[in-house]
Amino acid sequence: MLEHGFNGVLDLRRMKGFKTLSGVSEALKKLTKAVVHQIGEVEEVELIDALGRICAERIKAAMDTPPYDRSAVDGYAVIAEDVFGASPTNPIKLKLVGRVIAGSVPSTTPRVERGEAVEIMTGAPMPHNANAVVMAEDVEIVEDGIEVLKPVHPYQNVSRRGEDFKRGEIVIERGVRVKPWHIGALASLNIRKLKVLRRPRISVLSTGDELIELGEELKPDKIINSTKPMLMAFLLEEGCTPLDLGIAGDDVDEIYSKILRGLRESDGVIVTGGTSIGVKDLVPEAVKRLGEIVFHGLRMRPGKPTGAAVSNGKPIFMLSGFPVAATIGFEVLVRPILAHMQGCMVEPRPKIRGTLIRRVVNPPNIRSYVRVRVFKSDDKVMIEPLRLTGSGILSSLTRGNGLLIIPEELEGYDEGDIVEVELLQYVMRGGEG
Amino acid sequence: MLEHGFNGVLDLRRMKGFKTLSGVSEALKKLTKAVVHQIGEVEEVELIDALGRICAERIKAAMDTPPYDRSAVDGYAVIAEDVFGASPTNPIKLKLVGRVIAGSVPSTTPRVERGEAVEIMTGAPMPHNANAVVMAEDVEIVEDGIEVLKPVHPYQNVSRRGEDFKRGEIVIERGVRVKPWHIGALASLNIRKLKVLRRPRISVLSTGDELIELGEELKPDKIINSTKPMLMAFLLEEGCTPLDLGIAGDDVDEIYSKILRGLRESDGVIVTGGTSIGVKDLVPEAVKRLGEIVFHGLRMRPGKPTGAAVSNGKPIFMLSGFPVAATIGFEVLVRPILAHMQGCMVEPRPKIRGTLIRRVVNPPNIRSYVRVRVFKSDDKVMIEPLRLTGSGILSSLTRGNGLLIIPEELEGYDEGDIVEVELLQYVMRGGEG
Repeated sequence: MLEHGFNGVLDLRRMKGFKTLSGVSEALKKLTKAVVHQIGEVEEVELIDALGRICAERIKAAMDTPPYDRSAVDGYAVIAEDVFGASPTNPIKLKLVGRVIAGSVPSTTPRVERGEAVEIMTGAPMPHNANAVVMAEDVEIVEDGIEVLKPVHPYQNVSRRGEDFKRGEIVIERGVRVKPWHIGALASLNIRKLKVLRRPRISVLSTGDELIELGEELKPDKIINSTKPMLMAFLLEEGCTPLDLGIAGDDVDEIYSKILRGLRESDGVIVTGGTSIGVKDLVPEAVKRLGEIVFHGLRMRPGKPTGAAVSNGKPIFMLSGFPVAATIGFEVLVRPILAHMQGCMVEPRPKIRGTLIRRVVNPPNIRSYVRVRVFKSDDKVMIEPLRLTGSGILSSLTRGNGLLIIPEELEGYDEGDIVEVELLQYVMRGGEG
Repeated sequence: MLEHGFNGVLDLRRMKGFKTLSGVSEALKKLTKAVVHQIGEVEEVELIDALGRICAERIKAAMDTPPYDRSAVDGYAVIAEDVFGASPTNPIKLKLVGRVIAGSVPSTTPRVERGEAVEIMTGAPMPHNANAVVMAEDVEIVEDGIEVLKPVHPYQNVSRRGEDFKRGEIVIERGVRVKPWHIGALASLNIRKLKVLRRPRISVLSTGDELIELGEELKPDKIINSTKPMLMAFLLEEGCTPLDLGIAGDDVDEIYSKILRGLRESDGVIVTGGTSIGVKDLVPEAVKRLGEIVFHGLRMRPGKPTGAAVSNGKPIFMLSGFPVAATIGFEVLVRPILAHMQGCMVEPRPKIRGTLIRRVVNPPNIRSYVRVRVFKSDDKVMIEPLRLTGSGILSSLTRGNGLLIIPEELEGYDEGDIVEVELLQYVMRGGEG
């Protein structure tokens, strides 16, 4: 269309136009390959402080856990072969010769001989010679002993030594995000400290003469920079330390020097605004001086003007200044690259399936991120696409609570289709929102 | 079965036995009703520090956002009626009379008359009299102006004043967990501080003579208390401040006085261990002195010996000492009650659907939490139930990465069934784990 530029502005636009929009998956693949910077530094922290961090060492069990065979239930330790034929009509009588409680020293447990049983608590070490535990409810108490009403096979209801972790077995691996159960497993092996990766430091720069910082006095020609605090919150959620580079005016040199500072002081830079194909296409200009643009323009909506570059192996993300488009850009590019730089996997987002209550249309060859409201009606999950104009409409995320991703190859979804959405917030009741 | 107790121990057992196991949902309902203690105190924090906290005030927009009509795209501001019939075969010529960039003062924008257009950037205020924006790609540049090739309807590609939030509209409500987009929305309204609920303080006490603290010297009759640090990690994940009450030996008075301290200094107490129906059924004894037991014994596995009590409206959770059973108890009881005490909703967990590769059986009228490994094979999601003995097997959570919940009314699932599981960790590739 823009065949004949009539001034410099439009020539520029034609040259830098999104003629070759990249597919989202291909773009991410290219960027992942180009980002060779890795978070290498390691810090050792108290076990509980490792929660949510990325493990930086392989830990093997130094001992078997449990350290001895123990009962998994409350009941009676027996020799399984003694009770093979037991049933309510054929109860098998055993003599009660002792009791073991949890915390007993294994070497001091009584010995069970053929025809004998020992009362045992959950977690208690197995008596010598016993090889199974009959549950308390499968036993009748009689004079001097018990009658077993149900057979057990050898090692039934017994937690074997090393069943949880055998000595030498890997308990946690490099690159795993530490969860509460890892803390439990490592504690059970008496491990008090863990080496974790230092937190990634990511800089955030907003651009635009019209922007002012949160808290500054509002004037008619100014807009509060709400995208930057939102992105810093996203970075905090990902376990990063955000570095605030402030706002750069519409000046290539200022943008350049602020991004340069970000690259020196952190592992990557997010720049918002100024990436649209308009008169103020300054961010790509500045970025080009610092490294190589990997792609600019994505086949997705919102967020078409999203781009990324690499400088000495560190990523520079060029996101929209509009909060919703920036959110999608963060989800699609920043989270996976953060995981890549740490050698870990992306944390899964909650998903939910439900019935679409209105048709949504997808343009050809575009991946759409449709903001939806997920709610329950008569216990059925319903998904309502929100009607919107722009990519700046934050209320679509605060009023809505989900994202429906429509892949490139689909023309959309029909009313009544069962679709899966990413859940951003809890499911609302019918009346809410 | 236990008809004739032959000593005090078994009489005790019969009296306190899990004769009336409660259903999970009913138990939670009863407990929710009994817990009347609420987190009432509020603290005001910087906006970014409100991330993940529970909002304690209703915030209404003090102004319209956007504060004026603005363009949602790069293009040309026009009077829609001028271009109603436009098409590539019927291009409509408009005279170019100016340009507006983002950050322009709205009152200074040029005026568009019939037959005229103004070049406009995304985010820029709409020129006077214009009511729609034609996208740059739907225009051809000609001498002195543009030819419009596609019609627009009134307000097409315009973000209307107040479209995001109208003055007086609710932006965030009490009881909402603050997410990055709330930070963005509040920032856009120049709100710097937010009132949030103080973090719930929850105490954790472990019981058992056999337990020692992490880091203490291991002896043959001792077991490291791994469940307590794990539960403290779960509490941290829920935004709570955990209070460590240490370990109580098998002594009712000691257990009593430690729980009492927990009730005085915090909003609720989790006690682990000692709740099984065995010789050492001391926790319920101690708890009875402090309040009323709401239920004891749940129709679920693992975690049958789970119970809860209420003391002056504060919850006392009696969880298994075994880490996996304690995890399920935390998920089923503690998380919902924490949400209840804060007047918020439970955060959803990630879920995933896949094909079950082995049959799993569920006992009648029991809710089972089956640990599974979720992995991808040829891009299909496969779900492998892990074979296990006891509820202590933490490696089922570190090796596995999901939980399959089988409801009470089902006898299980067959091989090949499509099931939905809660995802605890990322999806593994076929070879992993």
